[in-house]
Formats: sequence, structure tokens, C-alpha cells
Amino acid sequence: MSAWVLPDHIADVLPSEARHIEELRRLYLDTARGYGYELVMPPLLEYLESLLSGTGRALDLQTFKLVDQLSGRTLGLRADTTPQVARIDAHLLNRAGVTRLCYCGPVLHTRPDRPFATREPLQFGAEIYGHAGIEADLEVLHLALDTLKAVSIHQFTVDLSDARIVPALLIGVTLTADARDALHSALAAKDTSGVQALSKDLPAHVRTALVALVDMYGDASVLAQAEKTFAAWPVVLQALAELRQIAADLSGVAITFDLADLRGYAYYSGVRFAIFVPGASDALVRGGRYDEVGAVFGRKRPAVGFSLDLKELVSVVPERALKAAIRAPWGTAQGLREAIATLRANGETVVCVMPGHESEVDEFDCDRELIEVAGQWAVQAVPAVQAL
Amino acid sequence: MSAWVLPDHIADVLPSEARHIEELRRLYLDTARGYGYELVMPPLLEYLESLLSGTGRALDLQTFKLVDQLSGRTLGLRADTTPQVARIDAHLLNRAGVTRLCYCGPVLHTRPDRPFATREPLQFGAEIYGHAGIEADLEVLHLALDTLKAVSIHQFTVDLSDARIVPALLIGVTLTADARDALHSALAAKDTSGVQALSKDLPAHVRTALVALVDMYGDASVLAQAEKTFAAWPVVLQALAELRQIAADLSGVAITFDLADLRGYAYYSGVRFAIFVPGASDALVRGGRYDEVGAVFGRKRPAVGFSLDLKELVSVVPERALKAAIRAPWGTAQGLREAIATLRANGETVVCVMPGHESEVDEFDCDRELIEVAGQWAVQAVPAVQAL
Repeated sequence: MSAWVLPDHIADVLPSEARHIEELRRLYLDTARGYGYELVMPPLLEYLESLLSGTGRALDLQTFKLVDQLSGRTLGLRADTTPQVARIDAHLLNRAGVTRLCYCGPVLHTRPDRPFATREPLQFGAEIYGHAGIEADLEVLHLALDTLKAVSIHQFTVDLSDARIVPALLIGVTLTADARDALHSALAAKDTSGVQALSKDLPAHVRTALVALVDMYGDASVLAQAEKTFAAWPVVLQALAELRQIAADLSGVAITFDLADLRGYAYYSGVRFAIFVPGASDALVRGGRYDEVGAVFGRKRPAVGFSLDLKELVSVVPERALKAAIRAPWGTAQGLREAIATLRANGETVVCVMPGHESEVDEFDCDRELIEVAGQWAVQAVPAVQAL
Repeated sequence: MSAWVLPDHIADVLPSEARHIEELRRLYLDTARGYGYELVMPPLLEYLESLLSGTGRALDLQTFKLVDQLSGRTLGLRADTTPQVARIDAHLLNRAGVTRLCYCGPVLHTRPDRPFATREPLQFGAEIYGHAGIEADLEVLHLALDTLKAVSIHQFTVDLSDARIVPALLIGVTLTADARDALHSALAAKDTSGVQALSKDLPAHVRTALVALVDMYGDASVLAQAEKTFAAWPVVLQALAELRQIAADLSGVAITFDLADLRGYAYYSGVRFAIFVPGASDALVRGGRYDEVGAVFGRKRPAVGFSLDLKELVSVVPERALKAAIRAPWGTAQGLREAIATLRANGETVVCVMPGHESEVDEFDCDRELIEVAGQWAVQAVPAVQAL
């Protein structure tokens, strides 16, 4: 009897939720299509080195590995789709100009990201390749917000950050990879004493800057404070100027800043954003610039994109009621099949009652039924008492 | 530079094909919805024993295995979705009456089924649980044919068989599992001398029946011949009567019979069908009755269903042209964003040209452009020379 128990953090999606996810999926794909983002479907399985090249250790740990019987080589199940899309842009399409791509499919994680996270997110993402200017960042952000609006989410906060800030502050500083990771974690956790301890051997101006960075989150006043504190780092000033420009463009949107935020994928290389929505325990959408991802495939192109998990999204979108169905008898009576076919062609769900099952509760909510009246098939309302 | 090479029988799906597959996917799901089949999304990963219970050795060999870090147990990547849907019917929904379910998602195979087959089919399937009568077989067949018509495939042949025939002929006969497998293979391959050799120690009337079965494929005359040959086996006569009834119901459809056909999944237990379409190297759709699949989950229910690979389907459906897009300038000019949003809301694809990329070839076919005329944004046809 235990044959049906599923692994932890793995679940079936049952009819009403599955239908809802499918609706959201279509709205996302159609919104992206409206912006000119073309759908691609990379495979679930690839040679491990293609999947992981240049993506960092966190993704490696998240990736299930298995052996390819055909080649004897190690395969990975994708834990993130972005490196695959970068590969497609670099090698398969290899277009000179701007390329816009989107995708929607499952990814698998060896361990859940968070206490109640699924290990099988349904990842939707959109990415623009080939434009280094801020217009690409803005278009992706507008698309991310439009997809939320398309699914009737109108309350959200955009949290802005920039992946260039911490590396710029640490430039010229010698740190082991472990020490750097620890420092990143302390910054991400806003752990001031941790940052102080980990930076105690660094030059005084770097240490001061890093400690100051921990508190740089909140409203737009953070930017002014950062511009003063980081005046000696031109790269940081450039990043801050771009953040100002993006915030100015998103008029009417609630915006916060979190300049020490380094969570998420290691490949980000510029402006980053996270979108928070009421009801979601963490950021629902994460995105930003990752100009380096395609480099391992021989073509380093500017790139900006975002992604989210539709299984997470569905939990914060109010469900829409399913249109009630029409009940019909099973049979080959004159005109019955034609009547049913016509109704279905008009978008109705017509459930044929199998012989002997007439007294069972309908699996679908049927508010109408197809009955024969004077030799004609007609749709009539189901009497209220039966509808229960 | 080899980082982008994909494993054999694994491929990316690029934009024009991906868009086409997505269209077919929607048509399939919508057609199934019209019949009252509810979408479910079982997970890609499960404990191996849930995935494989009662499904036979062929599916075991097709299934990728990996280790669950959370439990230390062996997981399987689904190679077929039907056993999962049977589990959902048996345990999660556990409805008393008829249940109609459908699904659409990737499955993975350790080895390709055929020389040019993908190892990552996109499996669509529909299944009806809880009705033992022939009406369920007929509904599933009609749905399978209607989905083909929905994607404009009007030429097809339905090949009918029945999984009860061979076991009925072998009832009471002692055979090792290996000998039985070999006999099944010889029958499926229509290898008369193989069947003669493998059945040489069987009772004479069984041997004669098996050898006769090899040639029982072709038009409806096969049924009359079988009724004579198998008069001593009431189970076979019952199966033949149902095949007659199904063929009679499908008036206007090209029907063939192949009574020795045992290909495909081992779980079939009754009427079976395969649908052949011009351009596909093998049967495009396979389906039938499999009343036993849910038994391992503690609930043996009548079940009929079919499945197909949308990646195979897309190769035999003529592609529909993509609606041309509208090119628009990037900018924050008065009214521009509003004009673009309105066009997109009306279903248009509007591609914003990133600054500096004006002279590049459009990634999309743009037959119109959004331009400012006397302070108003208007859509105009792109002059023919530019459209090249």
C-alpha cells in the first residue's frame, strides 16, 4: 500500500490546480509572444558539463546526475533553464542582432530551495540577448510586470540590486574562494558582525564600504547614501546611476533597493531585480543581467532575463471558476453525436454519461444537460436540486 | 567548444517548431477538455517501485534511475505517464464514478524506441477510469480521432487488436516467462517459422491457433476467419465481437486488424488500437484498455486510454504561418507605450527595436511598423523592399 507515497517535496498536481496552472502558462506565453519573445524547448537532460559550465557551485549541488547508457557519460537533469537558452542563442540561432527567447518547462532540484519548496518547479522565463544598453533591462522588467498584470496580480514590490557592486568593492583584494563565499553569505544575510569579522584583514576603506553596504536597503534614499559612500568606485557609481534610471522609468511601481542582495544564481553580472507579491514567502520573480553565461559556448553576448515558478505563482493567484459543463447521454441516437460535436466546437465541455452510471455524482459540475425534445436535441438547465 | 554538443537522441526544440508544438498542445488539451477530461500533472520523479509496479520489464529498462539525497532511495524518471495517472485515480481522487483525466508532459527514455526516435517525447494522453463497457473504449477512440482532426489530420488508419487473444490461447499452457516473451516477439514480428519453433511442444490445437494468428492481419475479413479458427475459445470470441462492434461504430474510418499485435506497453488487457498517419514511421497514437494498472495501488478499476508524442505529431502536421509582427521604436515618447500596450492587448506581437539596432534584420517577420504621424502613433505597412 506504500506504492503511492511520493518523495518529499514532490507532488502531483490535481485537476483544479492543474487547470489553473495551464491557464497561467498560456497567459505568460502569450504575453511574452506579444513582446516578440520566441518559445524554445531545451531538453531536460544534457551532458553535465554543458549544463553547469560557468554557472557556479550552487547549481551543481542542485543538479541530479545520472549515467547515459548510450555514451557512458554523466548527464544532468536541468536545475535551471537559463544556461540552456544561452547555449541556444550562442550556437543554434547564432543571430547577429537582438534575440528574444522564452521557455516554460519543469526543472528538478536535488534538494528544496526553502522549507516548503517543491523540487520540481515549473519554470517560466524570458530572456533578451544582444543588447548591452539599459533598454534591455527595462524591457525585461516591463515584461515581468505585464505578465503579473496578465494574471491579475496588481500588488507587487520591485526590489532592485546590482551584481557589480560587491565585486567592484573587492577588486584588487586577495581573498580565497571560501572567504569570498562566506563574505557573500554574510552580506546576503545582512549580518553586520559577520561582515566585520570576515573583512577584518581587508584595507580599511574596503572594510568600511562593505560594512556600510549591509545597511543599504530600503527606499530611494539608499541610492543617495550609496553615491556618497562609494564615490571612489566608478563602477559602483555607474551601477547606481542605472538603478536610478530604472526606478525613474517604473513610475507608479513600488520600488525598494537592497544593494547587498546576492541571492539566486551566481551568473548575474549587472542590474538585478526581485519581485515580491503578497502571499509568497520569498521573491516570486527573479531576474537581471547575466552577460557572461554564453561565454562558455564561445559567444559572450549581453543578456537580461527573468524567471519564476508557475507552481509558486498559482498559489498567490485567485482561482477562476471553471465553466460548468453539459451532461449528455451516451448513445448513437439520431443527431446526438452531431449535437455534441457542435457544442464542443463552440467551446463547451460535454460529458457523456456512461451507461449504468446515470445515478452517480457528476465528476464535472454540470449545470445543463442535453435532452431530446420532440426529436430534437436541446440544452436545458439542470433543475437546481440535481445540480447539488 | 564541445560544451554545446547534446547527447544522442536528445535535441533542442527551436522557435518555429516550439511554437507549433505549443499550438498542438493547446488544441489537444482543449479537445480533451471538451470531452470532460481533466488535466493532471504527475511529477517527473517518483520512487522507482511506484513508477514500475505492474508495468513490466520493458518499462524498467526504459527508465532512468537516480538516488534521492533526501531519502537515500532510488528514484525513477517517468518513461510513461499512465501508471502515474492510474495512481492518481486510485488514491488521490478516489472517486466512486467515472473519472476522465488527461496529461501533457515530457517522459524520458534511457534508449530510443526506434532508430530516429527522441529520448524525450512530449507525451499527451487521455484516460477514462471506472467503466468496463465498450462505451469507454469508443469514447477514447473518438477523442483520439477528434484530436487528430483538431490539428487538421484527416487521413489516418485505425488498426485494432485485442490483448486478450494471445493469453487466452495460452491459458493452461506451461511456459517459462522467457519462452512466453520469445513467443510474443515472434507473433509481433509475424515470424511464422519462429512461432512454429517456439510452440512445437505445445498442444496441437494451441499450436495451430498460434500459427494461424500470425496471418490474421488486414481488413474485416480477418474477423470472420478468426471466429472460425478460435471457436473453441469463448474469451477470444468475446474480444472479436467487441472489435466488430467498435469497427461498426467508426463508420467512415479506414480500419484494419492485426490480431497478433502485442507491441507497446505490457499493461494492456483488452481492446487495443494504433492509429497510423501518412508521414509517421510508426503508429502515431497507441491506446487501449488496461484494467489492471491501478491494482498495485490498491484499486483495480476499468481503464481505457491513449497517448502520443507531440514531438512526433509536429513532424506530420503542416506548419501554420506565424502572424507577422509590428516593429516599434524603443522610447518613452508621449503615447508610445500606451499605443504598444493597446496593440499587444489586441493580440499583436510588437517588437521594440533596441537603440542602435535599427539596421539589423528583424528577428521576427514584421510587416507593419508603429510610427508617429502628426503627434499620433499609427500602424503602417512596411514598404515591400524593407520587408525583405
